[in-house]
Amino acid sequence: MDYVNGPGRNHLFVPGPVNIPDQVIRAMNRNNEDYRSPAIPAMTKTLLEDVKKIFKTTSGTPFLIPTTGTGAWESALTNTLSPGDRIVSFLIGQFSLLWIDQQQRLNFNVDVVESDWGQGANLDVLASKLEADTAHTIKAICIVHNETATGVTNNLATVRKLLDHYNHPALFLVDGVSSICALDFRMDEWGIDVALTGSQKALSLPTGIGIVCASPKALEATKSAKSVRVFFDWNDYLKFYKLGTYWPYTPSIHLLYGLRAALDLIFEEGLENVIARHGRLAKATRLAVEAWGLKNCTQKEEWFSDTVTAVVVPPYIDSSEIVRRAWKRYNLSLGLGLNKIAGKVFRIGHLGNLNELQLLGCLAGVEMVLKDVGYPVQLGSGVAAACAYLQNTTPLIPSRI
Amino acid sequence: MDYVNGPGRNHLFVPGPVNIPDQVIRAMNRNNEDYRSPAIPAMTKTLLEDVKKIFKTTSGTPFLIPTTGTGAWESALTNTLSPGDRIVSFLIGQFSLLWIDQQQRLNFNVDVVESDWGQGANLDVLASKLEADTAHTIKAICIVHNETATGVTNNLATVRKLLDHYNHPALFLVDGVSSICALDFRMDEWGIDVALTGSQKALSLPTGIGIVCASPKALEATKSAKSVRVFFDWNDYLKFYKLGTYWPYTPSIHLLYGLRAALDLIFEEGLENVIARHGRLAKATRLAVEAWGLKNCTQKEEWFSDTVTAVVVPPYIDSSEIVRRAWKRYNLSLGLGLNKIAGKVFRIGHLGNLNELQLLGCLAGVEMVLKDVGYPVQLGSGVAAACAYLQNTTPLIPSRI
Amino acid sequence: MDYVNGPGRNHLFVPGPVNIPDQVIRAMNRNNEDYRSPAIPAMTKTLLEDVKKIFKTTSGTPFLIPTTGTGAWESALTNTLSPGDRIVSFLIGQFSLLWIDQQQRLNFNVDVVESDWGQGANLDVLASKLEADTAHTIKAICIVHNETATGVTNNLATVRKLLDHYNHPALFLVDGVSSICALDFRMDEWGIDVALTGSQKALSLPTGIGIVCASPKALEATKSAKSVRVFFDWNDYLKFYKLGTYWPYTPSIHLLYGLRAALDLIFEEGLENVIARHGRLAKATRLAVEAWGLKNCTQKEEWFSDTVTAVVVPPYIDSSEIVRRAWKRYNLSLGLGLNKIAGKVFRIGHLGNLNELQLLGCLAGVEMVLKDVGYPVQLGSGVAAACAYLQNTTPLIPSRI
Amino acid sequence: MDYVNGPGRNHLFVPGPVNIPDQVIRAMNRNNEDYRSPAIPAMTKTLLEDVKKIFKTTSGTPFLIPTTGTGAWESALTNTLSPGDRIVSFLIGQFSLLWIDQQQRLNFNVDVVESDWGQGANLDVLASKLEADTAHTIKAICIVHNETATGVTNNLATVRKLLDHYNHPALFLVDGVSSICALDFRMDEWGIDVALTGSQKALSLPTGIGIVCASPKALEATKSAKSVRVFFDWNDYLKFYKLGTYWPYTPSIHLLYGLRAALDLIFEEGLENVIARHGRLAKATRLAVEAWGLKNCTQKEEWFSDTVTAVVVPPYIDSSEIVRRAWKRYNLSLGLGLNKIAGKVFRIGHLGNLNELQLLGCLAGVEMVLKDVGYPVQLGSGVAAACAYLQNTTPLIPSRI
Repeated sequence: MDYVNGPGRNHLFVPGPVNIPDQVIRAMNRNNEDYRSPAIPAMTKTLLEDVKKIFKTTSGTPFLIPTTGTGAWESALTNTLSPGDRIVSFLIGQFSLLWIDQQQRLNFNVDVVESDWGQGANLDVLASKLEADTAHTIKAICIVHNETATGVTNNLATVRKLLDHYNHPALFLVDGVSSICALDFRMDEWGIDVALTGSQKALSLPTGIGIVCASPKALEATKSAKSVRVFFDWNDYLKFYKLGTYWPYTPSIHLLYGLRAALDLIFEEGLENVIARHGRLAKATRLAVEAWGLKNCTQKEEWFSDTVTAVVVPPYIDSSEIVRRAWKRYNLSLGLGLNKIAGKVFRIGHLGNLNELQLLGCLAGVEMVLKDVGYPVQLGSGVAAACAYLQNTTPLIPSRI
Repeated sequence: MDYVNGPGRNHLFVPGPVNIPDQVIRAMNRNNEDYRSPAIPAMTKTLLEDVKKIFKTTSGTPFLIPTTGTGAWESALTNTLSPGDRIVSFLIGQFSLLWIDQQQRLNFNVDVVESDWGQGANLDVLASKLEADTAHTIKAICIVHNETATGVTNNLATVRKLLDHYNHPALFLVDGVSSICALDFRMDEWGIDVALTGSQKALSLPTGIGIVCASPKALEATKSAKSVRVFFDWNDYLKFYKLGTYWPYTPSIHLLYGLRAALDLIFEEGLENVIARHGRLAKATRLAVEAWGLKNCTQKEEWFSDTVTAVVVPPYIDSSEIVRRAWKRYNLSLGLGLNKIAGKVFRIGHLGNLNELQLLGCLAGVEMVLKDVGYPVQLGSGVAAACAYLQNTTPLIPSRI
Repeated sequence: MDYVNGPGRNHLFVPGPVNIPDQVIRAMNRNNEDYRSPAIPAMTKTLLEDVKKIFKTTSGTPFLIPTTGTGAWESALTNTLSPGDRIVSFLIGQFSLLWIDQQQRLNFNVDVVESDWGQGANLDVLASKLEADTAHTIKAICIVHNETATGVTNNLATVRKLLDHYNHPALFLVDGVSSICALDFRMDEWGIDVALTGSQKALSLPTGIGIVCASPKALEATKSAKSVRVFFDWNDYLKFYKLGTYWPYTPSIHLLYGLRAALDLIFEEGLENVIARHGRLAKATRLAVEAWGLKNCTQKEEWFSDTVTAVVVPPYIDSSEIVRRAWKRYNLSLGLGLNKIAGKVFRIGHLGNLNELQLLGCLAGVEMVLKDVGYPVQLGSGVAAACAYLQNTTPLIPSRI
Repeated sequence: MDYVNGPGRNHLFVPGPVNIPDQVIRAMNRNNEDYRSPAIPAMTKTLLEDVKKIFKTTSGTPFLIPTTGTGAWESALTNTLSPGDRIVSFLIGQFSLLWIDQQQRLNFNVDVVESDWGQGANLDVLASKLEADTAHTIKAICIVHNETATGVTNNLATVRKLLDHYNHPALFLVDGVSSICALDFRMDEWGIDVALTGSQKALSLPTGIGIVCASPKALEATKSAKSVRVFFDWNDYLKFYKLGTYWPYTPSIHLLYGLRAALDLIFEEGLENVIARHGRLAKATRLAVEAWGLKNCTQKEEWFSDTVTAVVVPPYIDSSEIVRRAWKRYNLSLGLGLNKIAGKVFRIGHLGNLNELQLLGCLAGVEMVLKDVGYPVQLGSGVAAACAYLQNTTPLIPSRI
């Protein structure tokens, strides 16, 4: 049943799927149940109410779709748009690329705004496009909040400001896959129309729920959206919401119980504390990278991601070898460089249910791997830099004070 | 975390999601993993190979899509057909109805062949249609093998015979959601082009994998199929199959380990023994229904389902009250009557990892509930009938002989 | 890892170890912890307070010893008595026999009062002995509340009445292994000095905690008790109770969390409801036995046990064959006849976290096995009798009303 | 159910109970079973055979007693010795002290050979005693292989040499609680008569099995040993071994399955590799301690323990504050200084199923705590020293090569 064991724990630092808290593993350790009994709808009701908090929305309507992030993307697009609709979409890395590929295959008219990988979305170009679009041919802006491939976080508040400035009615669709529940994400304040994430990211669950939240404006848009959809159709969900049975088809009982436990943990820690913890661990990681004399793939501090750090390796090193060796020798799982930056970067995911010492173990491991592959790192340097920061900033665990 | 406990175990006899074996629960009791490490592709390879056995296909190509049965339906249709394509589809109950609804919303030209609920697909009508269709305008035949709402099993061999008889090239698409891995299902022998099931049915896993298997002819059809699809696109899978990394997007690590354990259990018992066990438990259930003086919703023996029995209640009883009371008083989960037959039937699911004494506990419970709601059942009568049959036919557990 | 699987669940009806509720299995699904951190003592404190409730004592002092029932016996004896002390002990079956064997090997002067197996303790003999013992040479009365081998429950209230009547100061030591938390057990009201049970019995946990409760008089007796003891010495526990660290040596973290969950479930159901449920399931079992035309090993109704029923088989049948066959063919685990009554009785344990339909499945299984081994049972007869009673008496599950 | 959560994992570095591998947690995630069915004896047989391998004995007889290390001690003594017997026992720390306390309370005539805490057993004194004891009044030598309180490992080979040199027939009883399955332990080669460990130590299970192994000479000694014993009596086990049912009383089903999984993991890694891994992690820890400018409590290299390192703190620091703070701020569990050295040392347990990066996370945590409490540690220094060593010596994980 178990393949390729090593002694001790696997150190999971890919930017998803991430470590599942023991409390959540426990909650999912169960038999199936009848999802039409009164128990599951009662729990679902609390989940729908509570999941809105991690989007910071009160007016949004959430959908817990049995799918992945890719399916959540598709749901966001097909429920709100019609084939041929013009959308502006930002290409800044592999995941924005894949979303754009999906947008094109769904027959939208995609106006791609490309940046170098390592840069954020070019919002100046957006400004020009919005200014020029007095006819409002742009139906939607599609943007990833956090590009998981490069560790770049886009400024969503600015997108909203531009839309407001130009008084532009385009829908604002956001991939929050590697941001929501880890970064500060303000759906209502930023006027986001559809935001989405996957259960296996900062929520720290297994893969299997595409969590999508739609604004009233997005729900309104479903009425005219002509994209073909059935499995992903929000209206099927809304019909069952009204009935109080909630599910148009069978949900995963396990993931519902897991989500309940995950949300309970997040609220117990406090969402703002969760966000602050992500900031702290990310900063520590970046200090380590600096101490190693390596470069962050992200080119400006304003774009630094608090959930994933892509580290650029010297040209004489193949970053894939770093990832392979980390797994083979130290039971450490790092993220590969993808597509254009394959071989050039490796990624440290520092999102989800994680603490300081887990991260420091990872950083120590990265140092050893760097040395293994011939990079002249000073062992201990990154850990020292991270420790110096963390020792100053880590709060006491509130329940233990 | 736990809602509405009662003492002892829940007796889960809805026709899905079904009881998960302890061995599978154990296998899924784990942290996430990097799905890009060598371990997950290596396991996936065995899963793809082994899952074909439960379809009885050697030439088919399986897809383990992170979705539900509804998504698996959509994948079967959109990968092989184009909007406007004429398909013949059989309406015999709630699940065939829902599939037809999906077919219509996906813009196919659906030629619906309706039967009374409780009857099988009208294959005489199919014969006429095939005979008449010398122009081969029918692109596909869509049929559920086992209608979960009524407990009706259709004869797929006959469908194939008709297609062959008329030398008709239509694709043969089969919903095997409540049949595959429980009923005798012969994808290759019956010339099925797409067959599909869901993980939460006879495979006895949580919901979350839509398991779809495509014949070479179906794969060929993808080339001309113009239905829009991205998340459900088989070609994205095939691309990653070739790369040996297998996953176009993040799978559920838990369900993969669970599927591995589930298949191991099935092969250990022997697929033919699994099928025989389903036959035995179903026959025992039908004998009990007869002993209670109640009618099977299924109108002819040739259509009797070995995975679910829909029991017709007398007109003065509301079958929903039976389901409610079973849950409230005996911790027994039965299936509701759906749509047209709501209030008129309740359903006993007897599929998945189940044994004789579990079923007999359920039957005893049904007897008590029947009495509770005023039906003059002779307590013990159904159990007696079932026991008489089972005591004659139950084999020794091979590993314990 | 798993041996001799059969399809479906094992039906566990031995009188211990018994079925563990899923909630408890979940609670134990965890890593070890430092038992010297503040968390474990804090939880231990609640356990010690709450465990007293299942003994119905407020003045007793509980000990959660990492041992089995046999160890709990030893702890009860060695902490309160000295070698050579005269004790009156009742032999009514295999477990009282084993306790007496232990008493003798611990060098007490054991005054054995024997009854036929199937009868309760002969309290008339106790009365004579107490009457005669004006010199108070009897230091303790040792009695099992419920003899697990024969399904006989002794009347502890009468023992107390006799001690009071003769104003006799003997300690009153009670094996409550298969009674506490299932039968009505009143430590304080009945003036019991030491009562004990094992975690794997009605508490529905794994084996591993010997739960012992000592009255103030028993604690006083430790001061003069000269039996050699270290591992089982209560004083080592009391020393750590005072320190607030609770544990003289390492406890099982898992069983502590399991016990917390088990107690939570019991209090949620209500201890009196738990006791009533045991009464109901036991009565149903006895009605089935009667319907089968078989005899209860227990010779009088006043001794009928609500946790285990020993069923006498006809002389031409070997009861061990019933147990073997139940396991081999129906995945049903029944209790063997022990020692003197080996081959003559089989036992149905109906204690712990169990409900009506689980029991009915077991009874149906027993019927089939009886038929298998040649006993002319009328199939369904026992289930019918049990159902008739249960359908009248089973309450709604309170959390589901 | 869960108390005092912090985000992320607990870093468990007390010298027991230790981290349980996920595979073992999974194996224990189950319902109870009938321990009298054929399955449990069959598994027990393999356990008894395989557990001998971790003692490196072929002639020894193992006992898996449902107790703790303290109970295992008691079993070793009472089965082989009689009250009044003279035994030589070495006091070098808290655990040898506790064992001596037990020996005295069990009424042996204990000849205590005391060393400073931080030193090993004084074997010169043993030599004199053996030389002087021509009458063979010394019945047993009792020694801890590894004193968990101070991190001191005694040289058992030397003890054997002395016994042989003086041709002394004393029994050789060894506490291997924090050594067996982590340190090189050679029961047969070193002529050990009784060796014992606890499940929660290097075997990485929950507490609950006292694992004791007796040489033929020790078994012979049971015949004349007059110490009172029942629960701990090996003869009761031997009687059931002969019957093939193995258990004189109810074992923990969970721990048996857990032990099976734990042994499987150990043999998969290879016992010699497990021992080498412990040596590597211990050496890395000691290098870190040195880099921090702190002293090992163990006074000579020959006694350095590969399972636990006790670190001496400067006089102006209270080591208990280090332990408290590690838990409260970094979710790190360290061992307290005990008794004489309370407040003066803290302990890092590095035994059981553990790998390099887990240890490095711990070491980074210790550095931060040291700084927290005012010790002028150079952050990163210990990790650097440990990394330098580990990067040179860590092998590839064999199953991943």
